[in-house]
Order: sequence, then C-alpha cells, then structure tokens
Amino acid sequence: MSGTNKRITFARSPQGLPTLEDFGADEVAIPKPANGEFLSRSIYLSLDPYYRNVMKNSQIYQDRLAAGDVMVGETVAQIVESKHPDYKAGEYVAVRNGWQQYAVSKGDGVRRIDPAVAPISTALGVLGMPGLTGFAGTISLGEPKPGDTFVVSAATGPVGSTAGQTARLMGARVVGIAGGKEKCDYAVRELGYAACVNYKEGDLAANLKTACPNGIDVYFDNVAGDTLVAVIKNLALGARIILCGMIEAYSMDKPPAGPWLGPIVGARAIMKGLVVYDHVAMQPRLQRTVGGWIQSGQFKYREDIAEGIEKAPQAFCDLMRGKNFGKSLVRIGPDKV
Amino acid sequence: MSGTNKRITFARSPQGLPTLEDFGADEVAIPKPANGEFLSRSIYLSLDPYYRNVMKNSQIYQDRLAAGDVMVGETVAQIVESKHPDYKAGEYVAVRNGWQQYAVSKGDGVRRIDPAVAPISTALGVLGMPGLTGFAGTISLGEPKPGDTFVVSAATGPVGSTAGQTARLMGARVVGIAGGKEKCDYAVRELGYAACVNYKEGDLAANLKTACPNGIDVYFDNVAGDTLVAVIKNLALGARIILCGMIEAYSMDKPPAGPWLGPIVGARAIMKGLVVYDHVAMQPRLQRTVGGWIQSGQFKYREDIAEGIEKAPQAFCDLMRGKNFGKSLVRIGPDKV
Repeated sequence: MSGTNKRITFARSPQGLPTLEDFGADEVAIPKPANGEFLSRSIYLSLDPYYRNVMKNSQIYQDRLAAGDVMVGETVAQIVESKHPDYKAGEYVAVRNGWQQYAVSKGDGVRRIDPAVAPISTALGVLGMPGLTGFAGTISLGEPKPGDTFVVSAATGPVGSTAGQTARLMGARVVGIAGGKEKCDYAVRELGYAACVNYKEGDLAANLKTACPNGIDVYFDNVAGDTLVAVIKNLALGARIILCGMIEAYSMDKPPAGPWLGPIVGARAIMKGLVVYDHVAMQPRLQRTVGGWIQSGQFKYREDIAEGIEKAPQAFCDLMRGKNFGKSLVRIGPDKV
Repeated sequence: MSGTNKRITFARSPQGLPTLEDFGADEVAIPKPANGEFLSRSIYLSLDPYYRNVMKNSQIYQDRLAAGDVMVGETVAQIVESKHPDYKAGEYVAVRNGWQQYAVSKGDGVRRIDPAVAPISTALGVLGMPGLTGFAGTISLGEPKPGDTFVVSAATGPVGSTAGQTARLMGARVVGIAGGKEKCDYAVRELGYAACVNYKEGDLAANLKTACPNGIDVYFDNVAGDTLVAVIKNLALGARIILCGMIEAYSMDKPPAGPWLGPIVGARAIMKGLVVYDHVAMQPRLQRTVGGWIQSGQFKYREDIAEGIEKAPQAFCDLMRGKNFGKSLVRIGPDKV
C-alpha cells in the first residue's frame, strides 16, 4: 500500500500537566508488512491517563520514549494487508498502533474484535482494558453484596462506569463521584446510580455522608488524593477500598503523601491494589457479560471523540484536566473504507 | 478493710508528648465492696500507648476523664474481700482498677488468672490484650506462610514480640524493626528473629531492603509514620499490611498525612485495619497456645517494671518516648501478701 502515514510524536517529558508543546507531528511513508506481519489502518485511538506516566520515562512501564518517537497507545484498527497466517485483510483488531494512521504488527497482544457484539470503539473502552479494570476489580476485589453502598470516583469514565454499573447489577446501591452537574445528572439518569456527588461543589466528605447514610462499604478509587481522604472519613465497618487509579499523581514528579490511615483501623477496612494485567483471563467473561448487558440495554456508556489525529494532543491535555466526558477517543479513520 | 489508697489522677490533656505535669496524685480511704462487688489490691498496672489517646478525651473511647479522676488502666490484682457470688478472696484477676492501689469491681470484663500457666504479670502482656493483638492479628489477618518474610515494628514490645514469635512458629522468616542496638540484639538472640533493623541508624528503607532481599510479604505495623513509608518501598507481590498501632499520632492534635499508596497498587498489596476487640473470642486459644510455648521455652518475653505506684507517670512518659524495653508495667504491690 502506498501513501503517507501521519504520526503524533513524543517531544519531551511534561512538567506537571501535559501541554501541546510536549508533542510533535510528522508524516512518513506507510510501512510495509514483512512475512509474519500485518499492516492495519487505525480507526480509533484510545487516550488513557497512564500515558502521562509513560511520558515520565520512569521505570514503571516497559515503553521508553525518545524525542521524535511515535507516541505509544492502543487503537482499534482494520487490517489492510496481511502476511500473518492468523489474520486476514478486513478484520478488526485491538492493536497498539500508537498515535499514527498506519502500523505493522507481528500479532503480539492483538485482540480480534467482533463488530456484531457492540460498536468497535468499545474495544478501547467498556469492552477493553478500562472496562476489564472496572469489571474485574469490582467482581474480584470489591465484591459488593446486595444492600452494600458502593462508591466510585471518575464515575462516568470507562473504568468508573463499568465498575459502578457492574456493582448496580450485583445488587449494590451505587453512589458516584464526578466533576460537574452534567456528569452527575448523567450518572443518575443513564448509569442508574442512586446518587452522584459533584466534588467541585461544597464539602465532599459532608456530601458523601449525606449520600451514604449507612457508610461506604466499597470504594472503587480511580483518583486518590483529596477524594480518597473524604471517602475514608465515611467508611462502614468492614469496608473494602480498591486502589486503582491516581490520576493527580501522574502529573507530579514526586508522589504526594497519602491519607491518614487511622479510620482504616477503626472501620476494620481493607485496602487492595488493583492492576488490570492480573485479570486478563477475565476478558472473555467481560465480552460475554458486559457485552450482553449492552445488548439488553441494562448497561450504558459514553464516548468523547475528537475528530482527526491532529486533535490527539489537545484531547489528551483535556483528559488530564478532567475535561472529557466519557471514554476519550480520537477518530483517525472511518469505520469502513 | 481499713487503710489508705494511693491514686494517680488525671490533671489535664497533654500537649504533644505527655509530661509529669499532666498527672496528679492523692490518697483516699480504701473503698468498701457492696453486695455483688469485690475489693481487690492492685499488683501490676499495665502501661499502654492508647492511654495517651484516652487523655485526649476525644470520641474514640468510652472513658472520659475530668481533672482529679483516677487514671484508667488495666491491672493484675488479688481479691481481698468479696461480696460477689463468682469470686472469692485470694483469687487473681485481670481487672480495670486504674492507677491506684485498691478498687471495687462488679465483675464486668474481669478475667480470672491461673498463676500455674505463667507469671501473673503476663496477663497484662503477652497473655493479655497486647498478646492477643499480636497473636490474632498475625493468625487471622497477616496469615504468614512458610518462607514468607514477616516484618514487625516495635518488635520487642508485647504486641510486636507476640506477632513476631507467632509468625516464626508458623514458619515465616521474621525481621524486626526496633530502636537501638540493645533491642535489636535481643530480638535476634532471644526472640529468634532472622534479623532486626535499628530504625535510629542509617536509611531504614535501604536497611530493610538488605534485610529482606525477597521483599516483605507481611508487615505488622505498630507505629505507622516514617516506618510504614519505608516498608511500603519494599513490598513483595501480594503483601499484607496489618495496621495496628500509630503511636506517633497519639500525641498529635491533628492526625498526620499517611504514606503515598502507589506501591500498594504495584505490589497488589492488601492493607487491613486491626482492632483487638473483634478477636476476644481467641483469648482461650492465646492462653493455650502462647502459654504452651512459654512453658516449652519456645516463646520469650520481656518486662520493663517500674517499682511503686508513684513511678507510674514517669514510666508512662518514658513509654511514649520509646524508652521502655519490653512490656511496660508498674508494680503496685507484692505478688503475695
């Protein structure tokens, strides 16, 4: 295949929150697949807060970025040319193409997508890694029981909305935490939460107390920071806290202090660290279960889609400032050609 | 019984670490037991860090102290006169007489002591509430397995030495954290720990890394603060942290911040709050098991005994500064009269 391949590149490690100057752009020839490889065209790029950590070039992730390297990231793509025995042209896959229009792959870590289950974009959201994080973390670590009060932060994002709706469908009373009235209204109206607290207004600990009069049995933590401090003041006896995301700290050079843990003792609470890679074996269960809930209308999701690969840096900067509403995606090409 | 009863009283809530001026003393008549009560003479007074929290008069404990009230606390005592149907003169009991030579009791919360099992003073230490804390916390929450590295802070105190020796007798490799060479030598030589790190010397996180080359599987935390921060940097995958004591914070008006929890996620670790009152049903198992280990010589303990009730305030101030070495007790009267 001939033509050019637009790419967004890494320019430098951000200072604090990322800015447009931390990225570059270029255009190169479309690569050609060797034997055992396939070429795919990117359709959707997933934007995820952990990229900010990758841009630190610290020891946490395997990826290392030099100035001019294409930014790493997961995409939904369609195979356009295949010299790989297991894949053929036309198939849809979830593949780490990075922030570019075309890439070749040897098939490692590639997941085939069935467009009949749900729109292909969901493979990066509620049916992808974020969804698996929320689903497996809730089922395997949070273990909400009927009657439990289940609180989730970043409650309308792909991780939070999967955690919250899974808990609701397990019989728990779900209370979201989100930024702004619009997100909170959506959480109650569309996601079926019993309540949603706007952390930007008033005293969060006091508002959580009102929303959770019997205390918090499970907290699915996507943000840490002051939100975690407020939750810890409202724990029920035997509470479980799932530590999952710490978005605020991703933009810091030095990790901040954490919450005073005294109430953890008083509540006989349990805090557990969640890493999604431990739970990849649950991916088929996610497809089957959440895919089924989507088809039956019991499970909703929302996407925030920027149009065109050129918009990816701005969309990522918005995401890190909490300006997105739903799963943050960039449309790089049309679903079908 | 006639005569006088020396008492140490509460004078005021301390500012920061307690001082002698926070206590008073007086002498009153020995009380007389009514029907359904017994009179006992105190032999040992237990000194415990949580008294500092009681002296805050906050909402944490039921006890409230006004100036001139006798200080609350647990004692080992011998009954001298009984109008209670279940107790007779001469019996030894663990009873909350407070900081005084004599008191009457209705029998609530009283535990009979068998002097044949171990010296009666142990009913306030390794066979009392501190021992139950270390024993039940290790067995039920820490769950060390053979080959695990089990770290315990305040490692030579009654809670820490019971936790550490229990873990050792469950097959774990035990590493203590203590203040000073003398305590560390004792921990290795007498308590059978594989190693003991002196937190007063050098970089604690680095020294723990040396002492725990395979990481820390279980941490029994009696102190929180900087020690917890250092431990969290050295967790093995799947580590369990038992949050038990936070001695530093007891002398603070406002709770301090806690540790950065990022490594909890990376290690897929679990933190659990421990409150001993949940585990009182294990008291008979403690007597039988740790009592048996003491008799067979597999389990050691150490007591730091101040002589005479007048010394109680100074001994408590020393305890809160980590100057004690072993279970802090005050001898108020002879074992036998």
